[in-house]
Amino acid sequence: MGYMPLAAMINPVALITAKRDGQALTADAIKALIDAYTRGDVPDYQMSAFLMASFLRGMNDAETAALTDAMLYSGSVLDLSATPGIKVDKHSTGGVGDKVSLILAPVVAACGVPVPMISGRGLGHSGGTLDKLEAIPGLRTDLSTAQYKAQLDRIGLVMIGQTREIAPADRKLYALRDVTATVEFIPFIAASIMSKKLAEGIDALVLDVKAGRGAFMKTPDDARRLAETLVAIGERFGKPTVAWMTNMDIPLGRAVGNWPEVEESIRCLQGADVPDLMEVTLALAGEMLHLGGVATSPEAGRRRAQDAIASGQAFDKFVELVEAQHGDPSVLTDPASHAAPAADVRAPDHARGYIADLDALAVGYTAVALGAGRRTKEDVVDPTAGIVLHKKPGDAVTPGEVLAHLYTKKTDEIAPFAASIQAAYTFSDTQPAPPPMLLDRYTKAGWMTA
Amino acid sequence: MGYMPLAAMINPVALITAKRDGQALTADAIKALIDAYTRGDVPDYQMSAFLMASFLRGMNDAETAALTDAMLYSGSVLDLSATPGIKVDKHSTGGVGDKVSLILAPVVAACGVPVPMISGRGLGHSGGTLDKLEAIPGLRTDLSTAQYKAQLDRIGLVMIGQTREIAPADRKLYALRDVTATVEFIPFIAASIMSKKLAEGIDALVLDVKAGRGAFMKTPDDARRLAETLVAIGERFGKPTVAWMTNMDIPLGRAVGNWPEVEESIRCLQGADVPDLMEVTLALAGEMLHLGGVATSPEAGRRRAQDAIASGQAFDKFVELVEAQHGDPSVLTDPASHAAPAADVRAPDHARGYIADLDALAVGYTAVALGAGRRTKEDVVDPTAGIVLHKKPGDAVTPGEVLAHLYTKKTDEIAPFAASIQAAYTFSDTQPAPPPMLLDRYTKAGWMTA
Repeated sequence: MGYMPLAAMINPVALITAKRDGQALTADAIKALIDAYTRGDVPDYQMSAFLMASFLRGMNDAETAALTDAMLYSGSVLDLSATPGIKVDKHSTGGVGDKVSLILAPVVAACGVPVPMISGRGLGHSGGTLDKLEAIPGLRTDLSTAQYKAQLDRIGLVMIGQTREIAPADRKLYALRDVTATVEFIPFIAASIMSKKLAEGIDALVLDVKAGRGAFMKTPDDARRLAETLVAIGERFGKPTVAWMTNMDIPLGRAVGNWPEVEESIRCLQGADVPDLMEVTLALAGEMLHLGGVATSPEAGRRRAQDAIASGQAFDKFVELVEAQHGDPSVLTDPASHAAPAADVRAPDHARGYIADLDALAVGYTAVALGAGRRTKEDVVDPTAGIVLHKKPGDAVTPGEVLAHLYTKKTDEIAPFAASIQAAYTFSDTQPAPPPMLLDRYTKAGWMTA
Repeated sequence: MGYMPLAAMINPVALITAKRDGQALTADAIKALIDAYTRGDVPDYQMSAFLMASFLRGMNDAETAALTDAMLYSGSVLDLSATPGIKVDKHSTGGVGDKVSLILAPVVAACGVPVPMISGRGLGHSGGTLDKLEAIPGLRTDLSTAQYKAQLDRIGLVMIGQTREIAPADRKLYALRDVTATVEFIPFIAASIMSKKLAEGIDALVLDVKAGRGAFMKTPDDARRLAETLVAIGERFGKPTVAWMTNMDIPLGRAVGNWPEVEESIRCLQGADVPDLMEVTLALAGEMLHLGGVATSPEAGRRRAQDAIASGQAFDKFVELVEAQHGDPSVLTDPASHAAPAADVRAPDHARGYIADLDALAVGYTAVALGAGRRTKEDVVDPTAGIVLHKKPGDAVTPGEVLAHLYTKKTDEIAPFAASIQAAYTFSDTQPAPPPMLLDRYTKAGWMTA
């Protein structure tokens, strides 16, 4: 965006006024505003007025790209050119039971495509990859930039948290959006995601844009608009980007909570078939291997990923990752060794026939309440807390059968948690068809229905 | 609004979200938010998001009344019941050359209606009554509440600035609006005006809502909506309220600037007829005397006001006010004893025939630039600075004739000031009709065209 003279140029009230009145801002104006905010020259109270004006008046594609650019270059952009190969990452917009990264990243790395992944923590009802990884005793996600590069170069896989050097404007803006009701706005969401992903040093990106009641985008329309915005930004920055819109009406897989999800991921890496989870994981793996240049098509990539699991190479890569990041590998070989469930949730008397539906959002919030997530930033996550779903839509059920196990230290309050999970289920006499998981695929060429 | 439990009840993000999404808030919610903000429990960055969401989504009459109530009861509401009579004040939304209060208040008080007036300072291109009063050497406007009540009781007239006890929420909100592009929103403007006026202890109120290029409300529609909102709030609080919409396309009277306006006011109190200025002043005086119960109609009140000027009682009341507030009364008897003009503005060569028009906004900004107002809060006002207009629309003119005198200490930069004033005039071959000053009158009974 070129050279900009500093503070003298920027009049925050004029920029807020322009946005308030529905004008589109120039890239230079957005960059000057974000730079001044990051430096502390524009106070929070002016930025929050700007955020709300943008939320209500909208931002066009050029403004969103300029915002991404300003946030990206507010910090370091990592240079991974020392590691050969096309570096590819995946980002999910977040859902309930979404442990895809834990399986996908070692699968792709095992196939020879380097995966440099910077992840986040749990947010609202949805889990975060960092919290899941840290459920493995000893595992460190706070690597330095030098350690991050060295590990990627050595084993082709690294999974860490956002460092202080990465997109400081995003961190500051995200904290402000969180307390000013300006989170759920697609240009901000897209700029936040893409500024961090582009800072990782990737060459290409695959996006899993969740849609449904357990997703942040509740409607397919919103998910579609987010996917289009994310892909447009990626391509604008010269990074081939593919987005899948996937179903998040029901939890993904059967485990929800940090350690329970690690356990389920290990079983999948060892060849277990959890159909909905593996359908999404293999589709994304196929895209990453195709973008990474080791498969001639996404479908060929998908087969290659299946082979890496069957051969044990994917699980070995996961063990290698855990060891490299100081985790205790012994838990990986005996993953079921966690605490006994605190309670069983059983099917009610009227539950005859089949599970008709299961509300991902209710399951997600209950998991957070059990201790698997944070309700305030200060909350400490209980890594063993969570829910294992024994019944999912399409499964046969009889009254009194176990629907789910609950894991928590909050055993005094267990009855309402169990009631929430029971209420999240609905039943029917006839067996429902399994919901489609892969909804639509978007690239710069446009939408393609799965 | 009744008893409210404190901070525990209020979730600022939920209130911002509701307003962002276009919902109307309850009176309790608005009161809780404003109270928490005034206490410092809600930070500026959340309030500014709320202000912008309100600006863009709107506030209905009930919300505006609740906001006024919350701001009013954030501080003291004065009790003037010790002073007999119906206490009536006037508020103007501000304009260029608007010295009406200086004439009106002593006229009305001289007729036996007590006038407790709390005024503000100059803002943007428009002057403020406090700055004008303080152009009288020695005059104090920083009276305590006890002094304010005692003076009203003793002489029936007091004119001061906003004390710290009056509407602290308004002071805090105004400062925030000023830096977040949320000033020009009728519900905020109305709540700010009315919370301060209702806190004065008045029984009834007359409003002068200016419309035109020298006013804050540029269009008649905006001025009408503001008048309706102000009257609705006043009546809701049980105070009979009358609004006049008056013309602010051209400066009011011939003097602009603090001492020049005091001088013009003194001349009017001594019987001089400045037609546009006195038309507005006498109409407002008639309303105040009618509301104050000493005239049977606004028209009867108008005649009573004229009598008070003719008899010298109004001027005597002004002298009494100045003496009570420690001003030097000697300047009142020789008001022309100020500095010589720094420059004359002369009619250009093409100026033959009549003055067609004079842009109040250009005159207002030039007066500020000459030193009569503030461009930042830190600026010190020069009480002698200003402009005296020798020609106004309808006056005959020949090339080279004096259009205006400029008064300023900034004699080094006088040429551009003179050029601005010259450019504010337009000329025509035919004599234009004088513009109507009294546009429309609004009460709870509705609009009545003058």
